[in-house]
This record gives sequence, structure tokens and C-alpha cells, in this order.
Amino acid sequence: MKILKNINETVKFLRTEKMSGKSIGIVPTMGYLHEGHLSLIQTAKKNNDIVIVSVFVNPTQFGPGEDLDKYPRDLEQDCIKAESAGADILFCPSASEIYPDGYHTYVSVEKLGDNLCGNSRPGHFRGVATIVAKLFNISGADNAYFGQKDAQQFFILRRMAADLNMDIRLHICPIIREPDGLAMSSRNVYLTRDQRREAVILSEALAGAKALIEAGERNAAVVISEMNKIVNKSELAKVEYIKVVDTETLSDAEYIDKNLIALAVCFGSTRLIDNIIIEV
Amino acid sequence: MKILKNINETVKFLRTEKMSGKSIGIVPTMGYLHEGHLSLIQTAKKNNDIVIVSVFVNPTQFGPGEDLDKYPRDLEQDCIKAESAGADILFCPSASEIYPDGYHTYVSVEKLGDNLCGNSRPGHFRGVATIVAKLFNISGADNAYFGQKDAQQFFILRRMAADLNMDIRLHICPIIREPDGLAMSSRNVYLTRDQRREAVILSEALAGAKALIEAGERNAAVVISEMNKIVNKSELAKVEYIKVVDTETLSDAEYIDKNLIALAVCFGSTRLIDNIIIEV
Repeated sequence: MKILKNINETVKFLRTEKMSGKSIGIVPTMGYLHEGHLSLIQTAKKNNDIVIVSVFVNPTQFGPGEDLDKYPRDLEQDCIKAESAGADILFCPSASEIYPDGYHTYVSVEKLGDNLCGNSRPGHFRGVATIVAKLFNISGADNAYFGQKDAQQFFILRRMAADLNMDIRLHICPIIREPDGLAMSSRNVYLTRDQRREAVILSEALAGAKALIEAGERNAAVVISEMNKIVNKSELAKVEYIKVVDTETLSDAEYIDKNLIALAVCFGSTRLIDNIIIEV
Repeated sequence: MKILKNINETVKFLRTEKMSGKSIGIVPTMGYLHEGHLSLIQTAKKNNDIVIVSVFVNPTQFGPGEDLDKYPRDLEQDCIKAESAGADILFCPSASEIYPDGYHTYVSVEKLGDNLCGNSRPGHFRGVATIVAKLFNISGADNAYFGQKDAQQFFILRRMAADLNMDIRLHICPIIREPDGLAMSSRNVYLTRDQRREAVILSEALAGAKALIEAGERNAAVVISEMNKIVNKSELAKVEYIKVVDTETLSDAEYIDKNLIALAVCFGSTRLIDNIIIEV
């Protein structure tokens, strides 16, 4: 596996591969790789000749007071894990390589970033769209792989790629979970032992929602109320949002049909998210 | 010359050409082609195997009350002229092909769009950056050609392409002028006979600035004052701005070194722009 920090070098290498007819898959990450990331890399490797994994803690998607500085980093372990999962290139640029002096360009996807995580993280999805647009252009990838855990991010990036006529296909891959159901996340490392034990209520709330819907419930408010009840069993959990939204517009849905059911729950200063996509 | 209105068809055709090793040049226009556009097409043809000329009056770069509806259009003449100048493809999509229902993505270049034309046309350069990003992606072009008349647009797009790591080179080409010096523009057709006669004062003001600087003047305020004096000889002209700016930041310059000297002047409701780039 090649480890590259320089944009021009990465572009040059990948253009040569592409011109020789090889397909390229990209897995954009912020590093501190876990099984969720590795499953993306494995899927990418199954479907592309060359896989590039980017590891970049992107400052423009963090708001003031968010966890940019303390976001967990371990490049050495990331290299070992990415290579073992099949990555051909690990691209780990510095912030000044990505955003040099005089940098001024941003990509915004309107509306889709307003609801869900956008409510508490203004500017977050503008930062995400911008860095991913750059990574798509640097890599010239044919395929990009994203985890469903960040489902809103995926729907926004899919909109961006379609709207800007980017020549790349985006793939959403299943959430990888701990044995008790907690969705894997680099941020799980922040949880205390007590918080970690109770963090299972996110996936339990989603399981409760799914059971209700399978039993015939079609009223989103009833589903949300049931989920609130489940999360509130944990004394450490503080609900940020529990929502049922349309998968195209990401606006609140009244009735269940084809929806993203998502929640964000804080344990102390650690914010966890989880979701399911359902179609009845 | 192929005339294409459909994005997928255009992408498919150009990707095949590109994969066979051909270079692609794009000349983005709003149509109503004049000698200025044709010189861009000729330059593109000299330096690329395939030249695509886009003709699209882009609604997102017009503000409320601007001339979107009355902007001059003549697709039949555009086809004849583009083909004679060497275009291989004329791409003339509908507005709904470019901005379908549910379209939400915009590209913004901060700061560079604030001064000069940005002052009186808020949102204009966001619309320009967005459509040009789309056209770059649709065409997969290696080279893009722009007229110096829209110098601010060029500097903004160059910034966008660099910032977003777009794999394309942007070229700025000389302003083509009428025999009396008036910069060619599709909007010149709006001028009455009297306005047309006096419109020459834009290029005269720039010539005056150039003469002053060649004589040793280095104070931007003195240059601007001289230009104002020249423009104000016309009773029909109303100055919108006369500026000396830095070519990288596009912010006002105090002293002459490497600058864009630009002005916007209205004749009735017709707004004309012109500029020179100087280096002392």
C-alpha cells in the first residue's frame, strides 16, 4: 500500500492507472478506522481495481466548540488496518495541503442539510460536501463508498454528485454494529463504561420502531413517541432528535412509506447517531 | 458539428473520445455569439482535438430585475458561427435539463466575488461558478477558454478549479473589440445609436489609464480619477464602478503593480464592462 500526503502525486498516480483502464474506488474517512470503515474498503476492493482510502480530519465540517482537536487519531494503526482490508493507497494530506492560503471555494447542498444533524451542526454539511467534492476530483474515482451510519451525509453527497454532474457512483453500505447493537463509530471511544452500556438504547429504539411498523403502524408521531420512550429508559441519554424523514427531501414525514428513521443522542458531551432505512 | 441538448448523450460521446486519447476543449457561452466567442473557439480548436461550445443562458447567474428574459438569443446563427469557427459539438441544454426538479447544489467562491461586479450583482458569481462546475464535469474537458472581458469571472473560476482540484486548465483570451475600441458583447445590441457612439468611452478611459501608468503614475486613486474624467465626458454614461484591484484577491489596490483595471458603465438600462490587466 502506498501512503501519499501530496495531492499532485496522488492525482498523477491515479490518472496513470485510470488511463490504463483500471477502475478506482474511494473510501473517504476521518481515520481512526473501525470495522465499519474496513467493510467499506473490502466492498470497494471487491468492485474496483484500485482502492484509495483517504484519512483526513476535515476542519471545515467541525463547528466552533465541536471535537476537532480531540477527534481520535491513529495513523499508524489506520495504515495497518487499511492495507489488511485491501487498500492500495492511503491518502493522508495535511490541512494546509487541502486548504492552502487563499482557499475560498465551498460546495453547498441546500435544504437537505437543514433537518436532522444540520439543525445542531450549521455548516457541517457544507464542509462535508466541499471536502468530498475535492476528494472525488483528486481521485478521479469511478465509485465511492459511504457507511449508512451517516445516512444524511450520504443523501446529501448523492444529491451533490447528481446536481454537479460528477462522473462517479455513490454506494451506501450497511452499518456495522458491536455485538450488543451499538453502531460502530470512532467517537464511541469517548464513552465512559456506564455510557457505553446505555448507548445500546439507540439501536434498541430503532428496533422498537421497526417492530411497530412491521406490526402495521403508519403514523410517524406514534413511532417517534415509542422511540422516545425507549431512549428515555437510559438516565444518561439526552435526545437531540428522533425523526422520521423522506429519503429524497430529508424533510419530516407524517406517514410511514419510504423513510429514514434517525436519531441523535448525547451521553455527556459525546453525541451518537444511528438510523434505519425502511420501505413498507 | 453535433448539436446536443441532452447531458447523458453529451457525457457518453465525450467520454468515448477522451478514452481514445483525444483532448477536449470547452468554450462556455450564453450564446448570441460574436467575434469574441469565435476567437475563443478558434483558440480552443488550435489546442484540442475536440471542441465543445455550450450555449446556455444560465438563470442562476441573473438577479431579480436583470435581463434574463430579454437576453438576446439566436441559436440558428450560433450553430452556423460555432461550426465555422471549428466547434465539434454545440451543447444547448434546456434550463430543466441543467436544473431539474429537486436541484439544490451551489458552488461559491468567497471574497473574490464581493468587489467589482459582485457589488451590484449579488449571487451572480455563485450562479456562474455552479454552471461552469457542471459544464466542466459534463464535458470532462482538459482545457477551458474564457474571454478577458469577464476578467473577474475568469479569476473566480480559476480559483474554483484550483480549490476543488478540478483536472482542467483555464485560459484567458484577449478582448475582441469593434473598430472604435468598444469591447464586443452580446449586450451591445441593446444600445441605441447615441449610446453606441458614446460607449467608446469605456475603452478610452482604459487607454487613458494605461497612458498615465506608462508615464510613471503609480497611485491608483489618480488613475481612477483620470478615468472618471474621461467617462464623464459622455452625457449618457453613468459610472457603476471604476476600480484598480489586485489580480489574486480582487480587492482594491492603492498602488499600481500587477492589477486588473476594470469599469462598469450604464447607458440607460444597458450595463457595459471593460478592463485591462497591467503589470509594471
